[in-house]
Amino acid sequence: MTWLDLPGDTGFGLTNLPYGVFSVSGGDRRTGVAVGTRVLDIAAATGDELHATGSLNAFLAQGPAAWARLRQQVTEWLTDPAHQARIEPLLIPVADVTLHLPIEVADYVDFYSSRHHAENLGRMFRPGSDPLTPNWKHLPIGYHGRAGTVRVSGTPVIRPTGQLGAARFGPSQRLDIEAEVGFVVGAPSQLGTPVPVGDFAEHVFGVCLVNDWSARDLQSWEYVPLGPFLGKSFLTSVSPWVVPLAALEAARVSPPDRDVPTLPYLDDSKEPWGLDLSLEVRLNGELISRPPFGELYWTAPQQLAHMTVNGAALRTGDLFASGTVSGPAKDQRGSFIELSWGGAEPLTLADGTTRTFLEDGDVVTITATAPGAGGTRISLGEVTGTVQPALDPQ
Amino acid sequence: MTWLDLPGDTGFGLTNLPYGVFSVSGGDRRTGVAVGTRVLDIAAATGDELHATGSLNAFLAQGPAAWARLRQQVTEWLTDPAHQARIEPLLIPVADVTLHLPIEVADYVDFYSSRHHAENLGRMFRPGSDPLTPNWKHLPIGYHGRAGTVRVSGTPVIRPTGQLGAARFGPSQRLDIEAEVGFVVGAPSQLGTPVPVGDFAEHVFGVCLVNDWSARDLQSWEYVPLGPFLGKSFLTSVSPWVVPLAALEAARVSPPDRDVPTLPYLDDSKEPWGLDLSLEVRLNGELISRPPFGELYWTAPQQLAHMTVNGAALRTGDLFASGTVSGPAKDQRGSFIELSWGGAEPLTLADGTTRTFLEDGDVVTITATAPGAGGTRISLGEVTGTVQPALDPQ
Repeated sequence: MTWLDLPGDTGFGLTNLPYGVFSVSGGDRRTGVAVGTRVLDIAAATGDELHATGSLNAFLAQGPAAWARLRQQVTEWLTDPAHQARIEPLLIPVADVTLHLPIEVADYVDFYSSRHHAENLGRMFRPGSDPLTPNWKHLPIGYHGRAGTVRVSGTPVIRPTGQLGAARFGPSQRLDIEAEVGFVVGAPSQLGTPVPVGDFAEHVFGVCLVNDWSARDLQSWEYVPLGPFLGKSFLTSVSPWVVPLAALEAARVSPPDRDVPTLPYLDDSKEPWGLDLSLEVRLNGELISRPPFGELYWTAPQQLAHMTVNGAALRTGDLFASGTVSGPAKDQRGSFIELSWGGAEPLTLADGTTRTFLEDGDVVTITATAPGAGGTRISLGEVTGTVQPALDPQ
Repeated sequence: MTWLDLPGDTGFGLTNLPYGVFSVSGGDRRTGVAVGTRVLDIAAATGDELHATGSLNAFLAQGPAAWARLRQQVTEWLTDPAHQARIEPLLIPVADVTLHLPIEVADYVDFYSSRHHAENLGRMFRPGSDPLTPNWKHLPIGYHGRAGTVRVSGTPVIRPTGQLGAARFGPSQRLDIEAEVGFVVGAPSQLGTPVPVGDFAEHVFGVCLVNDWSARDLQSWEYVPLGPFLGKSFLTSVSPWVVPLAALEAARVSPPDRDVPTLPYLDDSKEPWGLDLSLEVRLNGELISRPPFGELYWTAPQQLAHMTVNGAALRTGDLFASGTVSGPAKDQRGSFIELSWGGAEPLTLADGTTRTFLEDGDVVTITATAPGAGGTRISLGEVTGTVQPALDPQ
């Protein structure tokens, strides 16, 4: 089906074609599409300045018809041998490029849509009461995070310093991850105009992996009554490749049954957008968790409809993430606070050492795959980061 | 002191010189400085493209030395008669221009730094317990708001619709204001590098007025445990003029005594940045409150130091606001939920009608003045908005 020599098990075959931003040897940042172990230079292939702007935003702003056209065009280039002579030189080994933050993030919203995650945290923090707050099954709870500290995979994770409690100050002792999936908004919406669940694919371009690094000690001291702030705002890492929704048709599944009837604006029964993404979390190379995204209680179209039901506008580059993805089993939990049950039950690693929260030097890598068209398996790539010691106080 | 004919009581004399973005008859957006009842076209006066970019961001990114140089230059143009012939034609009556959002907002953070406001809300929502949460006097509580829905004064306030409680959906019945002061970041900072309190004026360019419109019913249902979201994200209005910190030297006052010792990174005793801004809130023209900004418990340098102590980076265009400004007296409260004590004690207006929360058609205008150099009084202009009925549901 392609003149390219792609291994059958590549996660980056023609059914994927995710978008990113790359540069070579410190040169200009350009749009690229991952193909096998190479990157197709879209700026060169199209000759369009739009793809040499340093982020995907200008392309994403063009909307779904343009997204579909370019996907079709790229597929044609890579399958019709008539294009091989022109296109092959524009395929650059991924080892030779630097990958950058793919989008200029407008607003960043983080949801809290995994029931198992919310229940785990409720059991730890509010023992004896209902693990879910009364609103949890009525609306997808979310909040705004710091857009300016969303960075590409590989950005060092400097251990944050801050208030750990009353008159207690120092480096976080409970540095954690949150394994999440992010949705990237392409087409904007007008202030005052809600986006219905059915318009999801008219606005959202694609999906990336997110690690919403969290300092649990900073967070637990600060978060009442206005929510997380410094416990999250030091860094949020995203994978360099944005997988278009068009590549995820085969991954669509029905979301779990909801115990409480949803209001009409959240009714997603006509067009289910649960996504069967299989996440894997590795600590220093060792697989420690397999969070199942398909079990999320609230889906992305519901999150989008909720986020705009009050008339809030969307902008190109808005990023909204699922919140920590956790499944019902212990080895499906997407954060160390859950995996170690608040530190009370340390994880035992393959080398016999134990871990509650992250230590300096730890490397955390989140990967994911999903069913692709024609029985293929597509990759969402990875989001990784290495913990560095806290900086000396000024 | 100036060749201009300015009334003695103008709030926009040579000791103010605030920056905004304007256009004439649908033309390009350019940087302007308010002078009396006119706007000096800075793009034309300087001949610098930087001031024709449609927002102040490019200028703000240049940092404090450039800010000081241009302020000095504008002052010279307006005082030295040698410049009159060239400059006078570049002064456009403010009535002939459209004022736009002055900055492209990067991240928007809202604090909660008025003790009287926090105590009022605590008394209403948690009667019988300490009105302040245990963390309140240890750190300036804040959270991220929606940057994409920050709009310029005059933007219509469409009554938001949303969840008012379990299975309850409709237009907000408790639409409110929050009278606030915003601080605009000019010079960015690096990820991983805290900004100490003493570097405040190296990063922050100036001050504007903020009305953080709030739907209290949406907010109270959604905000546990991750904070306000849709109750705030439909609109935040800002005044069109950003008053440089350089204009506010005479307004600096000592903040109130703190009952709890602050940690060293929040120690602002060397360079007090309390600001004696006198706010006025008008409903349909009637003065209903005079919030005193100078009594804020946490000052802007403390907010900035706290916001970055975990290593979070600043970007040009970051906006951080004080939170609702309320004084100890009833007629100094900066929100209707406080003025009407949660709706239990309606305000009686001059025409004999009463008001708890906002009704369709209501116009709310917040203004402020401050002591300026040489005994002058400078104006921060106004932020205003008119409430429009909720849109029909889809």
